[in-house]
Formats: sequence, C-alpha cells, structure tokens
Amino acid sequence: MVTPAQQESLRKIKVIISDVDGVMTDGGIILGTDGQEFKRYDVKDGMGVTMARKAGLKACIITGRKSESVTIRGEELKFDGVYQGYFDKVEAYQVMKKEFGLEDENFLYLGDDIIDLPLFEIVGFSVSPADGIKQVRTEVDYVTTALGGKGALRETVELILEAQGKLEDVIKDLITFN
Amino acid sequence: MVTPAQQESLRKIKVIISDVDGVMTDGGIILGTDGQEFKRYDVKDGMGVTMARKAGLKACIITGRKSESVTIRGEELKFDGVYQGYFDKVEAYQVMKKEFGLEDENFLYLGDDIIDLPLFEIVGFSVSPADGIKQVRTEVDYVTTALGGKGALRETVELILEAQGKLEDVIKDLITFN
Amino acid sequence: MVTPAQQESLRKIKVIISDVDGVMTDGGIILGTDGQEFKRYDVKDGMGVTMARKAGLKACIITGRKSESVTIRGEELKFDGVYQGYFDKVEAYQVMKKEFGLEDENFLYLGDDIIDLPLFEIVGFSVSPADGIKQVRTEVDYVTTALGGKGALRETVELILEAQGKLEDVIKDLITFN
Amino acid sequence: MVTPAQQESLRKIKVIISDVDGVMTDGGIILGTDGQEFKRYDVKDGMGVTMARKAGLKACIITGRKSESVTIRGEELKFDGVYQGYFDKVEAYQVMKKEFGLEDENFLYLGDDIIDLPLFEIVGFSVSPADGIKQVRTEVDYVTTALGGKGALRETVELILEAQGKLEDVIKDLITFN
Repeated sequence: MVTPAQQESLRKIKVIISDVDGVMTDGGIILGTDGQEFKRYDVKDGMGVTMARKAGLKACIITGRKSESVTIRGEELKFDGVYQGYFDKVEAYQVMKKEFGLEDENFLYLGDDIIDLPLFEIVGFSVSPADGIKQVRTEVDYVTTALGGKGALRETVELILEAQGKLEDVIKDLITFN
Repeated sequence: MVTPAQQESLRKIKVIISDVDGVMTDGGIILGTDGQEFKRYDVKDGMGVTMARKAGLKACIITGRKSESVTIRGEELKFDGVYQGYFDKVEAYQVMKKEFGLEDENFLYLGDDIIDLPLFEIVGFSVSPADGIKQVRTEVDYVTTALGGKGALRETVELILEAQGKLEDVIKDLITFN
Repeated sequence: MVTPAQQESLRKIKVIISDVDGVMTDGGIILGTDGQEFKRYDVKDGMGVTMARKAGLKACIITGRKSESVTIRGEELKFDGVYQGYFDKVEAYQVMKKEFGLEDENFLYLGDDIIDLPLFEIVGFSVSPADGIKQVRTEVDYVTTALGGKGALRETVELILEAQGKLEDVIKDLITFN
Repeated sequence: MVTPAQQESLRKIKVIISDVDGVMTDGGIILGTDGQEFKRYDVKDGMGVTMARKAGLKACIITGRKSESVTIRGEELKFDGVYQGYFDKVEAYQVMKKEFGLEDENFLYLGDDIIDLPLFEIVGFSVSPADGIKQVRTEVDYVTTALGGKGALRETVELILEAQGKLEDVIKDLITFN
C-alpha cells in the first residue's frame, strides 16, 4: 500500500531510473565458455517502459557492471539514458540530473542491493523488487510484489501511472491503432 | 471450470492463435553480448501443437516482436501461420482470417498482456496464462492453471480437444505406431 | 512410498532408461536467433548417473527429438546408449534390449509425456517426474518428488540403489580417493 | 541459527571456499548444439565476494568439473584461487592450504553434493545451500536459507562477517565513494 504522502511523491516523478541485474533481470549472469554473457529480461517490463514513455515519463538505466546486452536492450526499449559501469550510482545520477535539468523529487530509483543505498536517499521515491537485499527492502519507500526480472519494473511504472491518474488512458492509447 | 456456454464456444474452435513472449515462453528475452536473442519454449507445448494438428485443428502465432527464434520454433512445430512484428494484433488476425476463410467464432486467442485486449474481444474464445497481466486475466474466457512457457498452450489445446470430445482419440492415435 | 512388490521389481533393474526433455531438463527448448539450441541439464542428475555406473547399472537415453546438446551430455556422463529421434520409443527400446540381451523386467523407464505411455507398459518399472503430464503420473509405478531437470533422474537412481541395498556403499566408494 | 560454539568457529575463518555447480549456480549445465556450455551465476553472490575481500577475507573456488565459464567468473570477481577439475576436493584443498599457510580452522567450505563430504570433515566450518543433497544438509554446520545460485554464497559471506562483527562497516565502506 502507498500512503497519501507517498502518493504525493509519486505524482512528482518525471524520470524512472532502473538498475539492471536483480531488477530488470533475476540477477542471473549467464556466462559461456566463449566469454559471452547473456541476461534474461522480461517482456512485461518492456511493455512497462513503453507505457511510461506514452505517459510522457523518461526512463533511464544505471548499472554497476558493463554489458553489451544492456546496450542492446536499452536501445530496443528506447531508454532515454543508459549509464553503465557506475559502481558509484550517485555519480551517474548527478550527470543525468544535470542533463534533464530536473529536481531530485522528480526522480524515482529502483534498485536491489547495498550499492544502491546512497542513491535511494537522494531521489524523490525509492523502490526495491520483492527479492531485493534486506538492507534495501527496509530502506525504500516501496517494495514491489513482483520479483526482479519478473515484472518489478512494470509494477513500478503502473504504480506511478496510477498515482498520476494516467494508467487507464495510457492503456487505452496503446491499444488504439488508427 | 468451463461453463456450458463456454463449452459450446470451444466446440466451434478450428484455429488456435498463440502469442509468443509470456505465453509460449515465460516472458524471458535472453540477450547476449553478441546481439543474439534466445527464447525458452516448452517441450510439452510442442506436443500440444502436435495433438492439435492430429485433431484437425490449425495453429498460428501472432507476436508483436520479431525474432528468428520464433521462425525456427514455428517451423519445427509446423505452425500453419507465423505473424511476427504485429504490435497491432487485430491487423494480423484480419489477414489470417481471410486466408482461412473462417468466422470469428472459429478462432481462439491465447495472450497475456494489454496489447492482446482488442483481439480478445473479436475471437470466439479468449485465454490467458496464469501469470498474464491482471487486465487480461479479468477479461478472458479462461485462465489456464499453467504459467506462460510452462504448459499454458498445452492446457489450452487439451481444453479444446476435451470440449470437442477428441482428446482420448488423439492420444491413442499419437501413441500408435504401425 | 514404494510397496514391497515394487521393491521387488526395483531389485531386478539393470538398465535405467531416461527421456531427455522434461526429465533430464525442465522441458525448456532454448532457441537462439542463429539456430542454436540449448538445453539445461542438472549437475545432481550427472552425479546420479555416475553413482548408477559405480553400482554396476547401465544408463541409456531415448528421446523423440534430436539435438547435438544431448550427444554432448551423453558423452560427458558416459551413457551406455543414446537413442535420439525416436518418436516411437518402443522401437528404440527393442534395439536396446537386443543389444543388452536382457529381459523387460531388467529395464526401468523414466518419462514425462504421452508418447512415453507405450514403453511404460513394457518395462519392469516406470517413473515420472513430479511435473509429468497427468496421464503419465497416473500410469507409472512411481512419481518422483523432484521436478524434471531438477533431480528426477538422481532420485530415481537413489530409489534403485536403496532397493538393491547399494546406496551407502556407492557413496562411500565415490568419496574414497586412493 | 548459529550456536555460540559455531559463532566461535566463524570468527576464525579467513578463507571461504566455494563449490560452483549447485552452489554458485542452481546446478544448471546449459549445453548448446555447438558444444558451448553456459552457467548462470548470481549478481548478489558477486557482491558477496566483493564484501568478503573488503573485510580482508580470501575467497577460492574448488570444482569437480572444468569450464572456461568458471575461469571468466573467477577473474571478474577476483577470486584468490580457482581449482577446477578436482573430483577429489581434499586434494585441491591441501594445495590451497599450503599456499595460504593457514590452519584447517581458518577455512570454510560451501558445497552441495556427496563428493563434498570429505572436505566438510576437515575445514573449520561447513555450509550447504538450502537445496543441497540430503546427505550433505544433515552433515554441515549450517544450511543457508538461500538456494544454490540464488544467494547461498552471499548469505554465507554475511554469516561470517556478522560473526566477526564486520558486516556494517564493510557495507558502509563499500558505499562510500571519495
């Protein structure tokens, strides 16, 4: 459940920032004998990003690791910014914030592990997947019902859109083809 | 459970249309560092398609994304039509319907997300996997017990065959080798 | 639980025959955009095959599909026979039986779907994984607690070894390095 | 729960030794038609190894199989030793022990199957993932709540750090970027 105060915070969100491993994936780092790395993303999260964009929200990625797989997924879903290799996520956030010219209260961050803690304290709204690390789950504003890589990002998008009263219109919009 | 009215609708089905991501898979989009994409299909669904064909039913795929992986799986299971890259699924359906020369009541559609909603309203029978999006599950005629990618298509095929009184014969037929 | 009569049957088993998809895997057919196919086997099943061999049992594979992945896994685990592409599993079994020069009562078959039904009626002992198809689970002598691809084969091996009074010795043997 | 005596043992640990298949992975051996092998590691375990190193602990791998995938993961996480192809794990351990110049009481071993039993009896503290083989779970000092490949290694690292009173400092340290 979201409190009225949190509802108020969610209404100010203009940019969704998401971590990758453990958030847009179930944390799996799939490594092959030839050095290739695979990640498993979720199709329903992809639709969530499409819904966010349709509602006028921006969506960005900040991740501590680096993987071509993230670049490919970021392009397919047309993320507005993909920041890879930032173990210090606040550093990436400062760059991003400047580019968007927005306030801290306009950003939501969805992360699952301890290196996400500092950024949680800065942004307007913080979210953890159901299987985020305990120190994260007890710190954030909202813990999703969905697991990482199994709809946590989608649920977060719908949470914002519902608070902003845009959810039904966005769905109606998305399924109207003329 | 299926009501007598739904039983009646299922008897008219001649073509099963299935979505791919989240229906024939668990929604996983597995992306590699070299740009390759993998999808995980289920062997029991494959047997379901074989059973459907044995019973004289047609089986088709409509999917919003495009992937060579779907083409390969479609050929292996000898689907009667594979429509990829149709974000507007009704558009693909209209093409398919004309080709088959059948009525709306002869088609069943199995989908899991909001872009499937318009087609659900047209076809004779609509189905969602157990883990379809809430807006889908509350809209369709039937929600499978099986999850997407873990037997939802197989369960749908058996649902039709049972309503049409063909299930036992098809199984007997399939395991008789002379 | 195993009845005394089943215990008796298990004592006569000399060859374990296993299906692949849905038994040594969770049924996942993982297809890539370049036509490659991956299967996910389980390391604990591998140890099970090693234990069976240590106890003097033979282990074979019969599968309806064909995949280089099965050939590789079969060689790594030193299976005594790998029969691929046999939709009619009894046909493969007859070839195998002749090669081993054994009776039906000496074979155990572990399968999960309807095309396995005819072979279940021939062999001395039949087993299904916990997530085998209903028509299979209600037909076999034993349903494992483990799911397909998550230890069903291992559990089957231990079932035999326990009935034959060999389990503890095999374990002791395997962990003694001199 | 950890008893006071176990607490005492955990305080002496200087080296964490981990098995791979079934411990750092869920036991999946993912084999492709071209002979490639993939393994699925967990990002949260990776952070666990980073935390261990930050606390001055060493981390090593001993595995019975051989895979380039393990080499790659081992390098990424900067393991202090990677011993592959040791079916006899005690043999690898003796080499490792000599290199570190430490006592048995300084080593913890995390394993999941019967070939891990001999090493469990030597090291100062033994751990099994929640889904380790029964003969292992009933033998070790501690069974993690987490499954293999889903945080068992991370939980083990936190267990040690908590017993050594270092957990909070390590986290604070890791999220301070100056």
